[in-house]
Amino acid sequence: MGAVTEQSFVEAGSAMDGDLPGQVRDTLATYLEARIAECETLDPEITKAAETLARFVLDSGKRIRPTFAWWGWRAAGGPGEGPEAEAVLRAAAALELVHTSALVHDDLIDDSDTRRGKPAVHREFATRHSNARWDGDAKHFGMAAAILLGDLALTWSDDMFHSAGLAPDALARGLRPWRSMRTEVLAGQYLDVLGQVRKSPTVHSALRVNELKSASYTVQRPLELGAEIADSSSPTLEALRRFGSDIGVAFQLRDDLLGVFGDPAVTGKPAGDDLREGKRTVLIAEAFDATHQHGDHRAADLLSSVLGDQTVDDSRVEQVREMLRCLGAVTAVERRIAALTDSALEALTDGCLAEPAVTHLRELAVAVTERTR
Amino acid sequence: MGAVTEQSFVEAGSAMDGDLPGQVRDTLATYLEARIAECETLDPEITKAAETLARFVLDSGKRIRPTFAWWGWRAAGGPGEGPEAEAVLRAAAALELVHTSALVHDDLIDDSDTRRGKPAVHREFATRHSNARWDGDAKHFGMAAAILLGDLALTWSDDMFHSAGLAPDALARGLRPWRSMRTEVLAGQYLDVLGQVRKSPTVHSALRVNELKSASYTVQRPLELGAEIADSSSPTLEALRRFGSDIGVAFQLRDDLLGVFGDPAVTGKPAGDDLREGKRTVLIAEAFDATHQHGDHRAADLLSSVLGDQTVDDSRVEQVREMLRCLGAVTAVERRIAALTDSALEALTDGCLAEPAVTHLRELAVAVTERTR
Repeated sequence: MGAVTEQSFVEAGSAMDGDLPGQVRDTLATYLEARIAECETLDPEITKAAETLARFVLDSGKRIRPTFAWWGWRAAGGPGEGPEAEAVLRAAAALELVHTSALVHDDLIDDSDTRRGKPAVHREFATRHSNARWDGDAKHFGMAAAILLGDLALTWSDDMFHSAGLAPDALARGLRPWRSMRTEVLAGQYLDVLGQVRKSPTVHSALRVNELKSASYTVQRPLELGAEIADSSSPTLEALRRFGSDIGVAFQLRDDLLGVFGDPAVTGKPAGDDLREGKRTVLIAEAFDATHQHGDHRAADLLSSVLGDQTVDDSRVEQVREMLRCLGAVTAVERRIAALTDSALEALTDGCLAEPAVTHLRELAVAVTERTR
Repeated sequence: MGAVTEQSFVEAGSAMDGDLPGQVRDTLATYLEARIAECETLDPEITKAAETLARFVLDSGKRIRPTFAWWGWRAAGGPGEGPEAEAVLRAAAALELVHTSALVHDDLIDDSDTRRGKPAVHREFATRHSNARWDGDAKHFGMAAAILLGDLALTWSDDMFHSAGLAPDALARGLRPWRSMRTEVLAGQYLDVLGQVRKSPTVHSALRVNELKSASYTVQRPLELGAEIADSSSPTLEALRRFGSDIGVAFQLRDDLLGVFGDPAVTGKPAGDDLREGKRTVLIAEAFDATHQHGDHRAADLLSSVLGDQTVDDSRVEQVREMLRCLGAVTAVERRIAALTDSALEALTDGCLAEPAVTHLRELAVAVTERTR
């Protein structure tokens, strides 16, 4: 019969293996609808605020973390349908609420105007304040609302995870990565903030932030979560961890490149947004390293002056882009992405992981490291 | 043998019935020590930040919520010692981490300088930024750190609750009030913020905030939590709910009075702090009601001008105090506190609740409604 093609692997999967983003969205919609109905007993204003949160969750999002959690479950031999699989999908969807909380609070911390091409939550509530001509400072009201709605999303993520319907032993195993992940993402965000205010970031410290904030949080822990719920063997878990760690860092490196070179029409963020925010990414750290090696003080000064400067215009962004290319920082980051992706794909080949998960993880690895948004 | 005295009831309790604040603190210290040890694998800066959070949790605090949870457990017949009781104490102590998150975020939202006589968390981190002469805005760094540490406390509260060692069925029952409480406190905070920016607060809307933010969160849900874990009968639960609702609102009304009339040396907050923050409390709403009834526009204008004015000095605070007394607002609030306390104490007498809990709840009811800090 010859070798099995990729396509036939995919077809060997269950109905639940298809359109995971759509299924995750539907699961979230059902959950949030019930929570909003409960809010109606509290106060109409709470219902309104919770509806805003729900729109933010449901309107868009790539559902990367729930998708990795699903494939972790399937890679470790978890069935692709039935009540257990449905409980796993609900537990995986809860990751999206953790992520909502992180985005809402992150946008506030970074003072970002937009998210996914729409006003960030703190801006949305500041606008409501202005439109209604309420007392006090609109920006401050926006901040307060964003803090509280981010907290609500974090709280509901736990409620959703614990009420997903996992068997007690599966839940206990899943709680290990769940617990680690939620501390690690906050740790990564804190180190990120600290990196922005401290002088002279190193490639090493920028990579540490990436490991915590992205590798662990976006890929590795979600994969582990699914695998642990499936009562994975140690070699399977180990292979998923290796894959997840590499792809997660590569994912963030791609994000760093998009933060400077991305097309606003595609990313939904202004051009060169990371420069304005003064983000100390691996890309920036590589550039500083190169200026030191070449003794190029002019380039170092230009980069320092642009980072965190809110008033930087498009022509100056273009100037920095050109410089990052000339210094070899872009090539260095692309090389890292390629090496990490190769290493991740190799981790999939050692035979511990079940199909069709391997095929889908291979596709996801390429998709998240070559994406344009 | 004669009637049993109050003292003998207390002595009939277990060792765990004594010094609950101290036991809660020790339980939190043990838990946080383990979490901080885990942080050491992440980054030394995370350890430092987590230690700051731990100091904030451990240095002071009245431990009111864990104490009510304990007496809810005992009132519903839960044993006063043994492994079950120890698990309940750990689950109850987790309430203190929810509260830490609420305080850290609340102080940021209210732009408060101090908490418990020390710098608020956002101020503490802003000072670190200034002292280290880091890049960017110190206040913004303080905000970012406070958001993330408040999130960490919220996350750890869940971890602590779920790892307290409760039996699966007890945990499932406890999750109901746990889940409600965490949404309600955020809802209450949001309505509080909204009340401050909207014009003309009513006594009704201010009471609604109190119900959510204090009655439910501080007294009623903690009592329910303990009682549910003990598999309480419906009449017991009902009596605790009535008691909790009344005492919780009375607690907040006392807090409102202290926010204007409290002694800074005792409260750890500046004199008249609630006025500067522009808090729309029941006390303030009663005062506005009185000015409308008497057609006293001058008094209404004075009150409006002071609310939310950060520059108000001590003599002006004293002027407002005098006015609140003259308008009868203070008497009206004291009357509400007295009526609520009476009604709460009556709920304790209908025979559904076990000793020594009734005695202790009676003492607590008086302590939290007559306190000076």
